[in-house]
Amino acid sequence: MKITKISKNFKIKRSIDYGTDEQKNTVKHIISEVRKNGDSAVKSFTKQFDGVNPNPVVSKEELAAAYSTLDVHYHQVIREAIENIKEYHERQLQTSWFYHRNDGSMLGQKVTALDSVGVYVPGGTAAYPSTVLMNVIPALVAGVERIVLVSPPTRDGGLAPSVLIAAAELGVSEVYKMGGAQAIAALAYGTETIASVDKITGPGNIYVALAKREVFGHVDIDMIAGPSEIVVLADGSVAAHEIAADLLSQAEHDILASSILVTPSEAFAKEVQTEVDKQLKALPRKDIAAKSIENNGHIYVTENLEEAIDVVNQLAPEHLEVMTKHSQSLLGKIKHAGAIFLGRYSTESVGDYFAGPNHVLPTNGTARFSSPLNVADFQKRSSIIAYSKKAFLENSGKIASFARLEGLEAHARAVEARKQEDGNENR
Amino acid sequence: MKITKISKNFKIKRSIDYGTDEQKNTVKHIISEVRKNGDSAVKSFTKQFDGVNPNPVVSKEELAAAYSTLDVHYHQVIREAIENIKEYHERQLQTSWFYHRNDGSMLGQKVTALDSVGVYVPGGTAAYPSTVLMNVIPALVAGVERIVLVSPPTRDGGLAPSVLIAAAELGVSEVYKMGGAQAIAALAYGTETIASVDKITGPGNIYVALAKREVFGHVDIDMIAGPSEIVVLADGSVAAHEIAADLLSQAEHDILASSILVTPSEAFAKEVQTEVDKQLKALPRKDIAAKSIENNGHIYVTENLEEAIDVVNQLAPEHLEVMTKHSQSLLGKIKHAGAIFLGRYSTESVGDYFAGPNHVLPTNGTARFSSPLNVADFQKRSSIIAYSKKAFLENSGKIASFARLEGLEAHARAVEARKQEDGNENR
Repeated sequence: MKITKISKNFKIKRSIDYGTDEQKNTVKHIISEVRKNGDSAVKSFTKQFDGVNPNPVVSKEELAAAYSTLDVHYHQVIREAIENIKEYHERQLQTSWFYHRNDGSMLGQKVTALDSVGVYVPGGTAAYPSTVLMNVIPALVAGVERIVLVSPPTRDGGLAPSVLIAAAELGVSEVYKMGGAQAIAALAYGTETIASVDKITGPGNIYVALAKREVFGHVDIDMIAGPSEIVVLADGSVAAHEIAADLLSQAEHDILASSILVTPSEAFAKEVQTEVDKQLKALPRKDIAAKSIENNGHIYVTENLEEAIDVVNQLAPEHLEVMTKHSQSLLGKIKHAGAIFLGRYSTESVGDYFAGPNHVLPTNGTARFSSPLNVADFQKRSSIIAYSKKAFLENSGKIASFARLEGLEAHARAVEARKQEDGNENR
Repeated sequence: MKITKISKNFKIKRSIDYGTDEQKNTVKHIISEVRKNGDSAVKSFTKQFDGVNPNPVVSKEELAAAYSTLDVHYHQVIREAIENIKEYHERQLQTSWFYHRNDGSMLGQKVTALDSVGVYVPGGTAAYPSTVLMNVIPALVAGVERIVLVSPPTRDGGLAPSVLIAAAELGVSEVYKMGGAQAIAALAYGTETIASVDKITGPGNIYVALAKREVFGHVDIDMIAGPSEIVVLADGSVAAHEIAADLLSQAEHDILASSILVTPSEAFAKEVQTEVDKQLKALPRKDIAAKSIENNGHIYVTENLEEAIDVVNQLAPEHLEVMTKHSQSLLGKIKHAGAIFLGRYSTESVGDYFAGPNHVLPTNGTARFSSPLNVADFQKRSSIIAYSKKAFLENSGKIASFARLEGLEAHARAVEARKQEDGNENR
């Protein structure tokens, strides 16, 4: 891991790349085929990319069978995680509100759940039950009636038991074995088997990301997620071997993942550097982690803690660990981060699966303007305007006048049409 | 206006088009030029498209001069609209929250305003002070520190007095005379004159819309707005000439705007049809309104009111007027609409400028999953996780176990590294 001393005027350079032209064209082709040929196109792409040809619909029997495959200890861990994640997300729930003005008008905001949502869960050789929990639970809490789960089949044409159990525990019964751009297209436009949904969430590879970007507008999406990142702000008060372990937990995800330490202590920087090298060698996914650390690992040494916090805000990281003395007292200075982990016992893994907050977080500096996936993402708001006769008569002149200021005469006339007394005052 | 009787199984067809390939290429070219050449590229596109070559920076003197140009009556109307819009949006303000679990852990959500926002205000031959109010006020209420306004110059190289006054009344002092894709590029990437912003909001023509779509990801955007729409649900209890005036107020915006009446009464449908024809002839913008009504005007006659409400929910309109008896009692049945106007005195114009709710609304059926522009759009949330030692020790086994279930050994080791007692428990 490179150590770089940086000054106050350090500026992060950042570029966001959404795939090559070839990948984009592939995705466009897949989407157009699925729109044209529905199920048969999905089946043929599944054969081509996943190498299997399963019935895409997961049966109740398959869901039930998953329970006997996976050790019962895990069932309990999944259930406890669900409880924690529900508890947190229930506090995000927003409700409709209104107020009456003195003139008798009612104004407000109606909050309604989306009708239907599709959740993409990466699969194939990996199994991510936490993705199921983090995407489905906020939708459930929001009150979404139809939640559809898609995930690419394994080599034997099934889905991972842990994913199926997570779905079953949450009452998700509409589960399909399909992945990639073809699954996104099926969710967005529907096929003979799947009715289309209003929003698609969940992570995926570059083809999934490009497909989500392509269908955005026709349906809503959560975000275009980039590679995962961690930034650790440390002053040396939490042991170097613990910080090194945290950096490596991010690096094992993906060779594009980035692990960054920001510290005012050069001595501590060197300690962590040594620990990373040592621990790296003993990791099962050491090839991935080593590449990630080599390409995207950085240790920034600043003049002091204040400057270190400035750098953190510039990075606007997906995950921020504050591993300092009195970490909670620094919270007011942290402006931009997806999730903030405070203190020694809040290593990132705590929040990845179990603590309660969502692990779907803004990447690549987008924490400057984006938020973790939350219940509000599965609700939408409608403004409510119920003007009283009194309010109308008091203000109609001003409203017509504003309309004419914008050159919109028909708007003014719609107001003036109602100034006539016709005894018809239904409200 | 065509009258169509429709049955229960009526399905709306909808297609979303984001411009031609030629328009897309033009926009890409403009953005790349502005990224490369900054101010000089913006200036040269302003000359090319707006036909003038002004200093892009609006001076304090220009802002002040606007007040003497516009009748003082309008100053007061703008101020009163500001008060109403502020009152409504202040009720949307969300605050940070947290809770402590019995094990001493703290979990929460920190809400932070965006640092900087750019607002696009259409200009040239038109002037929309209401766009200034509806985009700037939620940002102000959210606490955004830097708000930048851009608008294409008029033929004499200035900006409309009403737009400048709206900006000045809200304390927006960073105003630039530039429009089109070049203004969006300048906001997203910055030039020598303008520092880049984190989010861009506001309506515009197809080039502005395409440019916003192009820079989305690098910065955030509000939405890609389509042409404006109104749907009126009416049972005949509000006079036909008033409903016709409402339909025409939408039609005068744009030949692509759509005005739709849904009613269970065929007799009333015919009355409205006649009134539309009559009033249309007397409108200053009759050419635009006539084309809009001809191409996109519809009157749907349903079996009964229940079915009419079903059709409304399928349409998921930007603006919905409920012009029926007891309109407020129908609110529970309305699932999808950007803004809902209830009763005779809530003609759409009331909400377009003055009542308080935002007029930036989801178009083209996207009210199924999108919301009016609101204060939360100018804030972002960060999750907070501060695990206690007790919580950590009680749960570390389960967390490590979940990590291993997903095949992520380094995640498990980051947890286990902290199980060692080293007396170092800073939090």
